[in-house]
Amino acid sequence: MSSSDIFIGETIGTAVLILLGGGVCAAVTLKRSKAQNAGWLAVTFGWGFAVLTGAYMVGGVSGAHLNPAVTIGLAIEGGTKWSDVPLYLVSELFGAMIGAVLVWLAYYGQFRAHLTDPEILSAHTGEEGMVDKAAAPKAGPVLGVFSTGPEIRNAVQNVFTEIIATMVLVLAILTQGLNNDGNGIGTLGALITALVVVSIGLSLGGPTGYAINPVRDLGPRIVHALLPLPNKGGSDWGYAWIPVVGPLVGGALAGGLYNLAFA
Amino acid sequence: MSSSDIFIGETIGTAVLILLGGGVCAAVTLKRSKAQNAGWLAVTFGWGFAVLTGAYMVGGVSGAHLNPAVTIGLAIEGGTKWSDVPLYLVSELFGAMIGAVLVWLAYYGQFRAHLTDPEILSAHTGEEGMVDKAAAPKAGPVLGVFSTGPEIRNAVQNVFTEIIATMVLVLAILTQGLNNDGNGIGTLGALITALVVVSIGLSLGGPTGYAINPVRDLGPRIVHALLPLPNKGGSDWGYAWIPVVGPLVGGALAGGLYNLAFA
Amino acid sequence: MSSSDIFIGETIGTAVLILLGGGVCAAVTLKRSKAQNAGWLAVTFGWGFAVLTGAYMVGGVSGAHLNPAVTIGLAIEGGTKWSDVPLYLVSELFGAMIGAVLVWLAYYGQFRAHLTDPEILSAHTGEEGMVDKAAAPKAGPVLGVFSTGPEIRNAVQNVFTEIIATMVLVLAILTQGLNNDGNGIGTLGALITALVVVSIGLSLGGPTGYAINPVRDLGPRIVHALLPLPNKGGSDWGYAWIPVVGPLVGGALAGGLYNLAFA
Amino acid sequence: MSSSDIFIGETIGTAVLILLGGGVCAAVTLKRSKAQNAGWLAVTFGWGFAVLTGAYMVGGVSGAHLNPAVTIGLAIEGGTKWSDVPLYLVSELFGAMIGAVLVWLAYYGQFRAHLTDPEILSAHTGEEGMVDKAAAPKAGPVLGVFSTGPEIRNAVQNVFTEIIATMVLVLAILTQGLNNDGNGIGTLGALITALVVVSIGLSLGGPTGYAINPVRDLGPRIVHALLPLPNKGGSDWGYAWIPVVGPLVGGALAGGLYNLAFA
Repeated sequence: MSSSDIFIGETIGTAVLILLGGGVCAAVTLKRSKAQNAGWLAVTFGWGFAVLTGAYMVGGVSGAHLNPAVTIGLAIEGGTKWSDVPLYLVSELFGAMIGAVLVWLAYYGQFRAHLTDPEILSAHTGEEGMVDKAAAPKAGPVLGVFSTGPEIRNAVQNVFTEIIATMVLVLAILTQGLNNDGNGIGTLGALITALVVVSIGLSLGGPTGYAINPVRDLGPRIVHALLPLPNKGGSDWGYAWIPVVGPLVGGALAGGLYNLAFA
Repeated sequence: MSSSDIFIGETIGTAVLILLGGGVCAAVTLKRSKAQNAGWLAVTFGWGFAVLTGAYMVGGVSGAHLNPAVTIGLAIEGGTKWSDVPLYLVSELFGAMIGAVLVWLAYYGQFRAHLTDPEILSAHTGEEGMVDKAAAPKAGPVLGVFSTGPEIRNAVQNVFTEIIATMVLVLAILTQGLNNDGNGIGTLGALITALVVVSIGLSLGGPTGYAINPVRDLGPRIVHALLPLPNKGGSDWGYAWIPVVGPLVGGALAGGLYNLAFA
Repeated sequence: MSSSDIFIGETIGTAVLILLGGGVCAAVTLKRSKAQNAGWLAVTFGWGFAVLTGAYMVGGVSGAHLNPAVTIGLAIEGGTKWSDVPLYLVSELFGAMIGAVLVWLAYYGQFRAHLTDPEILSAHTGEEGMVDKAAAPKAGPVLGVFSTGPEIRNAVQNVFTEIIATMVLVLAILTQGLNNDGNGIGTLGALITALVVVSIGLSLGGPTGYAINPVRDLGPRIVHALLPLPNKGGSDWGYAWIPVVGPLVGGALAGGLYNLAFA
Repeated sequence: MSSSDIFIGETIGTAVLILLGGGVCAAVTLKRSKAQNAGWLAVTFGWGFAVLTGAYMVGGVSGAHLNPAVTIGLAIEGGTKWSDVPLYLVSELFGAMIGAVLVWLAYYGQFRAHLTDPEILSAHTGEEGMVDKAAAPKAGPVLGVFSTGPEIRNAVQNVFTEIIATMVLVLAILTQGLNNDGNGIGTLGALITALVVVSIGLSLGGPTGYAINPVRDLGPRIVHALLPLPNKGGSDWGYAWIPVVGPLVGGALAGGLYNLAFA
């Protein structure tokens, strides 16, 4: 796999992943979206099929990691060269940022409608129509479209939940070569991985919103901080390390467990 | 692939696509349908599995484009001959119109019940029981069963959303040959494409209702204009160019991006 | 395929189909079921995966028709011998009746709770706690668990809807050999067929509840008439011919269309 | 298959199954979970994809029974040696207990929030803020996250429902070798089995909550009894034998029926 394959594949694949994943968050959250309030099942299938679409597109190009936790897990397992890791990570972060910008463009009018709605803003600020940054410093009214946040803010618990959820994802990816009919990889593998992501969302997404991917959270959070959105509120940087560190640790532990138990 | 294969495959396949896709819109919209108000997830799975059914039926006959944006993308990529393109487009439009007529026949009683309901009509006209075409000139009370319409009417934004959504669809179809196990096409490919369509609906359908296919919108809109439906209201022709031009541009851009990045 | 394979496969497969299909109707309808009011999406996925389970079990035994409309379509197409048709039909009806009895046994307590609830009964009779057969002669309060019924009672419209919905199903099954990678049949074919059934439910189920299978409706209706359910009300025999004739005509038309267009 | 393969595969696979299956129950039940009240469809897809994830991971290691009813069925059918059965059962129970502990850890804060909520506790006790074990001796306010319980408590009916539901599951697994394209096992088999579990949940889950797996119920129930959860209430041991005996009988009957009808 050439460097250019890795760069092109991971950038495009992760951009599509975040366009569709952030897109479903925008779709169910924002005012004047046809999908507003479509529910948790829509969110979890939306993210799962976002993985499917991105992974299916570039599986034959770069292997479709789309996620530093997967890259780390594969490097530890041996399927990816350590020397390729930096390029994977940079491409994934770059793609995630592109994807987040595309969500903003695709939902441009909806963001505007949502962020100028007095009722929505007052729910975030206590005062109608104005964002008081002291009162709502952590998460603005549309940060959830970009990044994850916990229901109960507790660093140890939140990191643990992200670790365990990511371990399930990466272990499922690492073991797919073990199935005895040789169909574990390729098209069918992308489908199964996507459904595993739906599963993780349904089952382990309750506490933190399941980042399970450092760039899925960090890339869009950077874009949230940079975009000229009116009344957007804070980007909650105090939480930002958790959906980066948790998934990286989870991916590494999955690689280690794989080598210990299955190799 | 003979001309007759293209004509038969695309006509039947697109008719089935629109029968099932328009059908789910009728099912969740119309009075006295068992599925009324079944929700956005039902709509998105309904359209996705409509693609699956149509594509599965005629994949081995005409390649199952069912969509001029796909035809254009494949022509640019090289998988479809430019000389076959006109026949594909005509067959797709013809099939879409047949499909829309079949939706009307399958939901004949429901259309009648819906369009003679004073409460529904008054919501579209401001006056109980009468359709005032000056007051509701754009979209009649059942146009949404036939064609798409934006939540926020803005030509630039609406075209952009259709372009980006269609690019995801066509790029996913073009890249399916790249997967390294050779299972990227055929039955499994139809399934993945269908789930990509569910994904696009969930994630990018919020602003415009995701036409992502010129004939999916234009064919049923023509049928809406022609059918003898009582109190049907306007066919919103002012918007009609957007779900035609947006997807065509998106399909072409996907073909170009594929040639640039993956070929 | 031996006669005993056909009998065993179709009986067991259709019994499983109706156990699971009738089961989801019981689950979302009856009082004191955990799934009560789970919604139309649950019903449509429930029936689709019921087809998957039944078809997957006996696909290698009897070909898993599970439906006289499929048998007729395949006989016209040539895939099934006409001399085998009677045994298929008898086995399918027998299996459907077994399945309906199993639904009753699995939901025994729920049927009892539902059928002795004064509020539910009064909604069907106009008088609290008593079933007045003159007032509600057509469909009793749990007939919907067993058989289909129309939202708008109109023989021509109802037959037409059943014909068109069944044509989609049978055409999808007949064309599955056409896909160019040879994966159209077997395990993957059962999955696709199941999703086609979900599609038909979502898109064409609104007017009549989509029998699309004569024994799916007739078998359970006979069982409803025979079972010692208290206050069960009428079995609506006046409607019973429609979900038998419509699907048979639809299956035959699909066979004819297949021979005309694709053979 | 070595003993160590069986132990490692079944322990890890069942732990993942219960982590994700118990996880979706926690997600839709507990206060301050993003998925609270996500509905029955979320629960059934959550459990189905939990099976997919666990089975996919260890299918190539231990065959991925993950369920004593499957082990018994396969032993009767002949696919699993009787001498391996005890190790399968022990590993499955051990894995299920690990999975239940992981659910507790992943939802630590949510359990705490739920179990100290005066409103929730009073609904279980009749008195605000205190658990009266005499008044609610059977099932505490979070037992449903760990184990199943019936809507209508009747041993004969409850056992019967578990038997019939488990028969469907095990028969679907046993027959997967019969499909004529040889794709019945491996990756695709795991997917179909998962969808069969969704089907059973949707269709037969209404009366008892579908254990269909002795260790799925017993393992977490033991963990519920041992965990230091405040105000957790009783573990309903009076019901505990039903989701053990019912599935074991169902698995054995499926093995017998398979040998009788299909072998």
